[in-house]
Amino acid sequence: MSVGGKPSCARAGDLALLVGPKRRWRIVRLEPGQTLQTHHGVLNHDDLIGRPWGSRVATHLGHPYLFLPPSIHDLILRIRRITQIVYPKEAGYLLLKMNIGPGSHVIEAGSGSGGLTLALAHAVRPDGRVYSYETRSEMQRLARRNVERAGLADVVEFRLRDIVEGFEETGVNALFLDLPTPWDYLEQAYAALVNGGYLGAVLPTANQVARLLAALEPAPFGLPEVEEILLRAYKTVPARLRPVDRMVAHTGYLVFARSLVSGDAEAEGRGDAERTGGDDVS
Amino acid sequence: MSVGGKPSCARAGDLALLVGPKRRWRIVRLEPGQTLQTHHGVLNHDDLIGRPWGSRVATHLGHPYLFLPPSIHDLILRIRRITQIVYPKEAGYLLLKMNIGPGSHVIEAGSGSGGLTLALAHAVRPDGRVYSYETRSEMQRLARRNVERAGLADVVEFRLRDIVEGFEETGVNALFLDLPTPWDYLEQAYAALVNGGYLGAVLPTANQVARLLAALEPAPFGLPEVEEILLRAYKTVPARLRPVDRMVAHTGYLVFARSLVSGDAEAEGRGDAERTGGDDVS
Amino acid sequence: MSVGGKPSCARAGDLALLVGPKRRWRIVRLEPGQTLQTHHGVLNHDDLIGRPWGSRVATHLGHPYLFLPPSIHDLILRIRRITQIVYPKEAGYLLLKMNIGPGSHVIEAGSGSGGLTLALAHAVRPDGRVYSYETRSEMQRLARRNVERAGLADVVEFRLRDIVEGFEETGVNALFLDLPTPWDYLEQAYAALVNGGYLGAVLPTANQVARLLAALEPAPFGLPEVEEILLRAYKTVPARLRPVDRMVAHTGYLVFARSLVSGDAEAEGRGDAERTGGDDVS
Amino acid sequence: MSVGGKPSCARAGDLALLVGPKRRWRIVRLEPGQTLQTHHGVLNHDDLIGRPWGSRVATHLGHPYLFLPPSIHDLILRIRRITQIVYPKEAGYLLLKMNIGPGSHVIEAGSGSGGLTLALAHAVRPDGRVYSYETRSEMQRLARRNVERAGLADVVEFRLRDIVEGFEETGVNALFLDLPTPWDYLEQAYAALVNGGYLGAVLPTANQVARLLAALEPAPFGLPEVEEILLRAYKTVPARLRPVDRMVAHTGYLVFARSLVSGDAEAEGRGDAERTGGDDVS
Repeated sequence: MSVGGKPSCARAGDLALLVGPKRRWRIVRLEPGQTLQTHHGVLNHDDLIGRPWGSRVATHLGHPYLFLPPSIHDLILRIRRITQIVYPKEAGYLLLKMNIGPGSHVIEAGSGSGGLTLALAHAVRPDGRVYSYETRSEMQRLARRNVERAGLADVVEFRLRDIVEGFEETGVNALFLDLPTPWDYLEQAYAALVNGGYLGAVLPTANQVARLLAALEPAPFGLPEVEEILLRAYKTVPARLRPVDRMVAHTGYLVFARSLVSGDAEAEGRGDAERTGGDDVS
Repeated sequence: MSVGGKPSCARAGDLALLVGPKRRWRIVRLEPGQTLQTHHGVLNHDDLIGRPWGSRVATHLGHPYLFLPPSIHDLILRIRRITQIVYPKEAGYLLLKMNIGPGSHVIEAGSGSGGLTLALAHAVRPDGRVYSYETRSEMQRLARRNVERAGLADVVEFRLRDIVEGFEETGVNALFLDLPTPWDYLEQAYAALVNGGYLGAVLPTANQVARLLAALEPAPFGLPEVEEILLRAYKTVPARLRPVDRMVAHTGYLVFARSLVSGDAEAEGRGDAERTGGDDVS
Repeated sequence: MSVGGKPSCARAGDLALLVGPKRRWRIVRLEPGQTLQTHHGVLNHDDLIGRPWGSRVATHLGHPYLFLPPSIHDLILRIRRITQIVYPKEAGYLLLKMNIGPGSHVIEAGSGSGGLTLALAHAVRPDGRVYSYETRSEMQRLARRNVERAGLADVVEFRLRDIVEGFEETGVNALFLDLPTPWDYLEQAYAALVNGGYLGAVLPTANQVARLLAALEPAPFGLPEVEEILLRAYKTVPARLRPVDRMVAHTGYLVFARSLVSGDAEAEGRGDAERTGGDDVS
Repeated sequence: MSVGGKPSCARAGDLALLVGPKRRWRIVRLEPGQTLQTHHGVLNHDDLIGRPWGSRVATHLGHPYLFLPPSIHDLILRIRRITQIVYPKEAGYLLLKMNIGPGSHVIEAGSGSGGLTLALAHAVRPDGRVYSYETRSEMQRLARRNVERAGLADVVEFRLRDIVEGFEETGVNALFLDLPTPWDYLEQAYAALVNGGYLGAVLPTANQVARLLAALEPAPFGLPEVEEILLRAYKTVPARLRPVDRMVAHTGYLVFARSLVSGDAEAEGRGDAERTGGDDVS
């Protein structure tokens, strides 16, 4: 917290969010001597360094840009990617659902482009750890680069390893499977999770969800849940409030379950996924 | 992380989640000598203390319950409340959107029943702070009690104060207005926020959203966004995958904006709320 | 059209919609000498017969009721039912999608409680026909009674018959399968449909949808589509416009396909279900 | 119904739907001697006339097209338009909601591009009538042309007239206001509607909905309802069932009300728009 005064200013090395006409936006790292080419003209980094966040700046053609520190939300949406990413609407929810916060130890497999890695790393700082598994080295490089760019490399350990051999960690609080066949790795996931730990997965198709649910039934997991999240944005003209014309219809189904003491999982915790208000309110 | 071994066991004083038939669930604090009355029989705390998390336990009538540590998600849903709460689907999203994480300094007004306070406190631990304002003392008592019960009192400072007089803090990273007339407090919010900081609000009606958007236009805030989140749960029978019959249709509209350097906000950052892919990808 | 004058009045034998406090509503047939018991008092049919539609009437306790002719929408929602019904949001859409209108000949299987039968019969009047198949006689009785009550019996032919033996009709314009295993009846459906005719189905689970899609692939049908419809109602207080708290999350997935000339269906019409704007706009 | 036999063949003058690679589709009128240029080659109308519907045809380059009669759904989506249209998901629903069917007399204002006119005309054939009002002559020409092309001109009477002067008809069953300021025409609408008749409107913004609801309060209308419909399509690969990536987020809010006997509307029929199951089930 910059106690006691508005000016909180950009420094060389900071990431900056620049939002121009029609809300076109980009994120850049501020480096002395560099220039930023936009479709609306040039911005000199030297004019940005030292400037208060929240300023309006103008390109050499006079087009206005807002100059702001990017949020973790912005960084996730703007990572370089070669895979589908887990979007903030899902990432934010799964953090709460899987009880991930400062100090948590979390496994994710695979790393993908590192979008979820950013969200996890941001949440578990500074004492938690994210163990991010990936089998494709070029993918790992991309994820690592995205994590480094966001300044979160300290809390992420990347592992280039096929998880069919198992995870290196045990006793982790939460484990997220972001890969096409999570049902193949339930045993490995179980071995890595603390008792009572959180298993999560995101899957694009209903067929995969059905298959994962079937695989969870005999496994030592309980309380399976399947959820999807829809985000609808509105146009922000006060006198004409209305949703935007189009929206994302689907990113993936979220599946959650909890790790149980082996042998205790048989029948309970099955049934309807709706958590009811309950007769047993304490 | 309980390194190297499954048994992670409940201790006296822990909060425990107990999930019984039909997924009826409750959260209790484990205390020696206490008993828990459920609709399906009695559980003795002494039989739970020392037991591994993830165990199956049985009431004296033989009904099975799952015994788990509760997540922050569970705690939010089960606070004692006398007001509408911000649900995890919105809370998780706004944490990312407003860049709230470990170390953040965040103001919320009002405290309400403390549901969002839990989410905020959980996210900013251990070095961040939540400043939670409320004018009704009995409401503050409720929020404080809910926060204490969740073990998060260390990071929350409750303030019994009418925010029309302004906030005590300056330079906070994010400020969330969870009250009916946020347009009345934009000046106060601006004074408390760091340059580039995040303003958020949740509002039940479209009329309020239109009014807040109108009030933001002349204020030193930019990049207004309005979003709503829908969560749909599925039944988890693998051979009969389908959404549940009914869902929450509305909890509230989320409104976001960013604090700008005063006098720089005129025209830019207005317009369509849809962030486009952009021609300016760095 | 009651040309030239407001008073359009209820007659004995008419169905009437009565909407009371909190929008509780019911539909009754007006019969001389009868009384209607409501939770808010008694209404005498004799006081209603001859009264203008759109009137306000009062029970003997003074509680106001609106007195209106029911719509087909109202009738569908208020049939006596022992099965899940196809709701107006889906029924209205499938009528357009399957090109069902005045004069259409349509098969449905099964009759169920007759909810969809009402929508179909209402749409194809007076010269079209609905052929409604059912194997359970008590179900057929219920559907027939609901159709008769709505005054639509003239256009519906009920058939008590297992459709595994095929349908009696050929050359029908549209055929709707409202039963759990539509993939078992594609051959029979094909035999009944005119070339280019419309096949429709409603299915509660994703597993069933996947199975029907798989069965359609080798069958002489093309242009498969799967859609779901969500309806969200708003509270109608002008100064507090907002969605209601809860909504129906799922009634069923709609599946559509078109009947092709046998042998011509191989590869085309497959692929992505999204109809694009097209480069070929005429 | 083409009784007893599959071949139902295209004739000169028919409208035909042609669906090509990637489901690109177009609608053309079959005329001897004409050719159809597609992005995938040429089709000769003479090769199509006389061909069974549901056939597969090939362009001169060998690309396959499905050859089908278009549905009213297809025609609505493919009218020439210079305005936003009412989509089939809303049109189908409002037909049931406003009890519009064969024989209904319906007013719409304005005609717009004629999309809703098609749906209304298709539904009220052959004995009903659609009275379609418009003030802009070029718009009326477009709507008329679209209606004529669909073969529905017999049931539509176009009126070039400012409805502030009122409608020419009285006693109509339903009246739909598809214009920006429906609150300006409630008196005129009331004069045209039969007692108990159906008023409908579609509005893009929440502000308009709030204003219309406020105007309905003192007017002789009751039972106001506001609803929105979301349609989500799925990809149709059986082994990979999932929603498409993007969907329409908003076309408009539907508003409904019923015409009451003047002076009877005071307090009743107000309140929550949710129709409950009711204690008064007959």
